[in-house]
Amino acid sequence: MRNLKLILSYDGTDFAGWQVQSGRATVQGALASAIGRLSGENVLPQGSGRTDAGVHALAQVATFQTASTIPLENWALALNHILPPSIRVLEVGEAADSFHARKSATAKTYRYRMYRGSTCPPFLARYVWHYPFPLDEATMVAAAGIIVGAHDFTSFVAVDPERVERMAADAEDCPDRFEGVKPTNVKPNHVKPMNVRTIFSSTWAREGEELVYTVRGNGFLHHMVRNLVGTFVLAGKKSVSLEDFRRILSACDRSAAGPTAPATGLFLVSVEY
Amino acid sequence: MRNLKLILSYDGTDFAGWQVQSGRATVQGALASAIGRLSGENVLPQGSGRTDAGVHALAQVATFQTASTIPLENWALALNHILPPSIRVLEVGEAADSFHARKSATAKTYRYRMYRGSTCPPFLARYVWHYPFPLDEATMVAAAGIIVGAHDFTSFVAVDPERVERMAADAEDCPDRFEGVKPTNVKPNHVKPMNVRTIFSSTWAREGEELVYTVRGNGFLHHMVRNLVGTFVLAGKKSVSLEDFRRILSACDRSAAGPTAPATGLFLVSVEY
Repeated sequence: MRNLKLILSYDGTDFAGWQVQSGRATVQGALASAIGRLSGENVLPQGSGRTDAGVHALAQVATFQTASTIPLENWALALNHILPPSIRVLEVGEAADSFHARKSATAKTYRYRMYRGSTCPPFLARYVWHYPFPLDEATMVAAAGIIVGAHDFTSFVAVDPERVERMAADAEDCPDRFEGVKPTNVKPNHVKPMNVRTIFSSTWAREGEELVYTVRGNGFLHHMVRNLVGTFVLAGKKSVSLEDFRRILSACDRSAAGPTAPATGLFLVSVEY
Repeated sequence: MRNLKLILSYDGTDFAGWQVQSGRATVQGALASAIGRLSGENVLPQGSGRTDAGVHALAQVATFQTASTIPLENWALALNHILPPSIRVLEVGEAADSFHARKSATAKTYRYRMYRGSTCPPFLARYVWHYPFPLDEATMVAAAGIIVGAHDFTSFVAVDPERVERMAADAEDCPDRFEGVKPTNVKPNHVKPMNVRTIFSSTWAREGEELVYTVRGNGFLHHMVRNLVGTFVLAGKKSVSLEDFRRILSACDRSAAGPTAPATGLFLVSVEY
């Protein structure tokens, strides 16, 4: 058996997210079916993490085991021939048996694109959050800096029926070797260690008509980037001060933070190992 | 009654073209319905010309008559609030009663985008023709130059069941004032004057990984740009020499030319009056 590692880019608009769901188009499902057609094997490729419905990827990483003798250099071309144009395999390589797309990841980078002009070009509508209203961008830059370091991000985790199940799965993307890092906001009676993540960088930058958030961390909770963006926007609207933002982070309570930003603007940029 | 002139941009991927069709999503239909919701009037806006299913527009022009007293400056914002994000109204202005989006047009510019890299990014798949195979681009540039001037473009007009109806309508986009121009390839017994158009410029240019065709003329027949692109590609593949290309143009016979290039790569760039 070989352990193959794929780097994938996809437009998430027309998919119900990464994870396979019966009766719905998903990226994992499309990939599994393309691999099945090529090798005749029934495998479920494992991604570095789930992306939600509408979320895009510039370089998602996935692995799967195969007994197929198809030469390495033929896989990408053959998979791209079967897959829809909205999913492209950029690279296929052989990985060590111990390599796992999710468990071996040491860092991930996400980008969130906001379009600030008054009329959003139709060709960008699937890839940005169109927000033409006034925002104090300097406050957003300052708020973004607050989350750098190790924190309990319970205030920014999705609250939904699948939460318990997801939290258990998400916990796996926070490797043991980060256990020694002390989060700043953990209170003795309040600690939820499975929601602790370390953020290495967190910045907003202007790119023409777009305001773009880039965040790199050792792992991310369900909806965490979109909930952060929704709260940074409250800071930009001056509904939330920098002091409020610090309190929201410390509260470890989802109801303290802002709304979830739309999926359209979010891109998984890269995964590091 | 006021005669309003709209400038529109749209992503044509999810529309069955410009022209209204019962039971199908069309740009004209979506626009008519949005105007109806705003003004309560039942009007069918007239475009500068039809775009086919999947064809995009950077600046299509449309006009409609209205008795509504909605101030000019409110129309674009209000229409964009109702329209899907894949259609944007860029500008609304008042035009003279005699102004007609199609009949008053003096020139149009189209662009056709080909993606030449081996893997087409999923975010471009809706907006280009992915063609990674070898092409002699210098020959394509030379072939493009051959069509400049007034010619009978029968070799590049769509052959389809609606042809006669379309030809009659298309003839209207070739204004009388060009009647004095002598096409180069019209034979005494072979003339189909309704298929004569004047091309002002016709060029292929490299833009990074893309090879882009830009053509400006006084009018275009149904499928003309896509049939020209399909034949330029035959020239790029060396299946058709420059001498052959001249013969194809002179033949005034659709079967002499190459296949129709996919709709995805085509953009209506601008309309001049």
